[in-house]
Amino acid sequence: MRLGMLGFGNVASATMKAFLDNHHLVRAKTGAEIRFVRVATRTPQRAAGRVPDGCEIGDNWRSVVDDPAIDVVLELTGDVELGREAVLRAIANGKHIVTANKALLALHGDEIFRLADEADRHVLFEGAVAVSIPIVKTLKESAAANRLSSVVGILNGTCNYVLSQMSEECKEFATAVAQAQERGFAEADPLLDISGEDAAHKIALLAALAFGVPIDLRSVTFKGIQDVERIDMAFAKRVGYQVKLIARAVLDDGALSVAVEPMLVPDGSMLAQVRGSMNGIAIRGDLLGTAFLYGSGAGGPQTASAVLADVIELANRTIVPAAGTTHNLGFKRSGISPTAIRFPEQRERPFYLRLRLDDRAGMLAQVTKVLADCNVSVSVLLQDEAHEGQADLVVITHAMSSARLATMIPLLREAAGAGHAVVTYPVLDEPGC
Amino acid sequence: MRLGMLGFGNVASATMKAFLDNHHLVRAKTGAEIRFVRVATRTPQRAAGRVPDGCEIGDNWRSVVDDPAIDVVLELTGDVELGREAVLRAIANGKHIVTANKALLALHGDEIFRLADEADRHVLFEGAVAVSIPIVKTLKESAAANRLSSVVGILNGTCNYVLSQMSEECKEFATAVAQAQERGFAEADPLLDISGEDAAHKIALLAALAFGVPIDLRSVTFKGIQDVERIDMAFAKRVGYQVKLIARAVLDDGALSVAVEPMLVPDGSMLAQVRGSMNGIAIRGDLLGTAFLYGSGAGGPQTASAVLADVIELANRTIVPAAGTTHNLGFKRSGISPTAIRFPEQRERPFYLRLRLDDRAGMLAQVTKVLADCNVSVSVLLQDEAHEGQADLVVITHAMSSARLATMIPLLREAAGAGHAVVTYPVLDEPGC
Repeated sequence: MRLGMLGFGNVASATMKAFLDNHHLVRAKTGAEIRFVRVATRTPQRAAGRVPDGCEIGDNWRSVVDDPAIDVVLELTGDVELGREAVLRAIANGKHIVTANKALLALHGDEIFRLADEADRHVLFEGAVAVSIPIVKTLKESAAANRLSSVVGILNGTCNYVLSQMSEECKEFATAVAQAQERGFAEADPLLDISGEDAAHKIALLAALAFGVPIDLRSVTFKGIQDVERIDMAFAKRVGYQVKLIARAVLDDGALSVAVEPMLVPDGSMLAQVRGSMNGIAIRGDLLGTAFLYGSGAGGPQTASAVLADVIELANRTIVPAAGTTHNLGFKRSGISPTAIRFPEQRERPFYLRLRLDDRAGMLAQVTKVLADCNVSVSVLLQDEAHEGQADLVVITHAMSSARLATMIPLLREAAGAGHAVVTYPVLDEPGC
Repeated sequence: MRLGMLGFGNVASATMKAFLDNHHLVRAKTGAEIRFVRVATRTPQRAAGRVPDGCEIGDNWRSVVDDPAIDVVLELTGDVELGREAVLRAIANGKHIVTANKALLALHGDEIFRLADEADRHVLFEGAVAVSIPIVKTLKESAAANRLSSVVGILNGTCNYVLSQMSEECKEFATAVAQAQERGFAEADPLLDISGEDAAHKIALLAALAFGVPIDLRSVTFKGIQDVERIDMAFAKRVGYQVKLIARAVLDDGALSVAVEPMLVPDGSMLAQVRGSMNGIAIRGDLLGTAFLYGSGAGGPQTASAVLADVIELANRTIVPAAGTTHNLGFKRSGISPTAIRFPEQRERPFYLRLRLDDRAGMLAQVTKVLADCNVSVSVLLQDEAHEGQADLVVITHAMSSARLATMIPLLREAAGAGHAVVTYPVLDEPGC
């Protein structure tokens, strides 16, 4: 099996290094002899001396995707537009694809998978999401007999690192973001992480795998961590929760909601144990119950591990395609009842509320009257001692709709007194998370 | 693809029910049409009315393994001797095997995998270990490019349930064991769980997968939870640890140790979060770093999920075998440098010690002098208030060899005074666990 590689940045060079270092393992685990024959990169000088004997280095991606000797193209550029053009042309030329480019698949996956299915080629992408966690294989294969009901995860290591630093080390948001960049796991443009968009790309891909729906990023709502304040992390901790950026795809009464937003996660849950730049994903199915998978979400060697697993998979197996089966996503498009994508979130769930009150008699009564009038029952209430004439009141409600919350907030703001904001976070209450 | 099933107990009947309930999913995910044609069980009346149309029910296992129409035999009897005879004969008859019988594979896996490799048949067994966790697929495929260094897990749900009940609910050992049996996840013979033998079967299988060594149960040391006392669980908790039954396969300087024993696990580790009857497994590889997988270790539907995933795998893929490749374990027997199995445990690690001392002046000095004389440095020391003239002293040491511990214990016993036992537990200090 002959491989061509596109790109020679962090992931690509780590993949080549891992292939060279662990070649004896790759050989021991495959029937086919695997050889790299061509690398194309904008910086050929970076690759010089770092590829196997006989592997040519060039700067023209077409020389890889058009080379009839190449069976599999490793698309590791990280570039969406170049990636799309190269992958589509490689598939048209009869090549299988291994990619770690999550933005490419989230934005153009439908086109790419459709073309690959028609051409009977494979597009494998374990390196695109939560690289040390075999989530793609788990959803496609291990959980294949299950009716899945939820995939809930911490999918962006930068956001989780920033939140962990704010919560555990009392770091400022900006300092923590700068640290994540220094430590090399933030995206080149940190806004892609911080805004929740990168996690939205990933959960869109996982939702497509888990629920057999086409990838439509427009139906994924996402909110980032820019506005998370340490005061709410501290209050959350005092009542037994962590603030985490949670990506969810949840099927409920036949309707699917896919969203990314900061949420309160119970201390005792597995997701609350995911610290620093790590990733964690809980899946729930009717047979398997709950499984939780944890590992690195980024990093050169970690991504190389996933990319090489896909290469070994292609070398070892012949996947027998069936008429109408989109083997690339692991389900028949027509085989699963269509699920309505619910947008926005209509599911009832608990909420965290923080209000700043003037420290005078009757304020608490006014606020609790609003809750009662809105028929919202309270699960936890914590009022802090007043400082400078003001006190913070924190409430965790029982499950309620976002619509009711939206109605209640202006009433709470009125009760709390002019100029006081009401801060809200949804609380994660998926079973098994 | 035509299936035959051996057995119709909990796992087999749950597998049949899941196949019938989720048939649309299995169809949507496979190219082949999958049909059950024959079930053999000692209790055919149990199966009546619970199999698909056209599936015959009998009481003779040979009618399944000798039926030329059957492509795949699901061995779900749980019986080692019958299982061995049936599986060997089925392979000789050209059939692939899917089994959930861990004792069968731990005891006779070498014979079975060798015969299957020679006959070019597949033996898949995701349902044999930690059923909701795709650990077999992860080790065989997802981590295939890694030099693995450790697989550390909580692999027996009964033991973990019993320890959790003792630690969190202050239950007596015997009460907790009886509860586990009532709740249906203990083995028929609870001693197989409690003694650590079931976990030893499972870690032997995982070690074979991870390190490419033959399965030799004689090289697996195991110790159960019969002697775990609540007092040590309570002390462990006070110094930041949980007592868990830990199964480990650790490669260190080219030597492999495979063992099952109760250990102290740091509170902050993922393994410490594994509560009740759940299972959890941490793996470590040179590329992927650490991954941790968590889910149910037993249960009918959960095992059905793993068994059906293996069935779908067989239906969808043709694994291309290579000369000399033992595709059934995912490695070439000759391809990986032979690893010495180290027995007994020689690796240095921290230990927990508890001594009961007479409450008189100088006792603490005598004990700490023994530690100093033995060149053992102390990481944590806790002495409790005396009751009835005696006080408990708890020490967590820095890493030391088991040999040095064995030398030190009689000296400690002497220092503590006649008749006082010294209780010891190793402390888990694998990176990333």
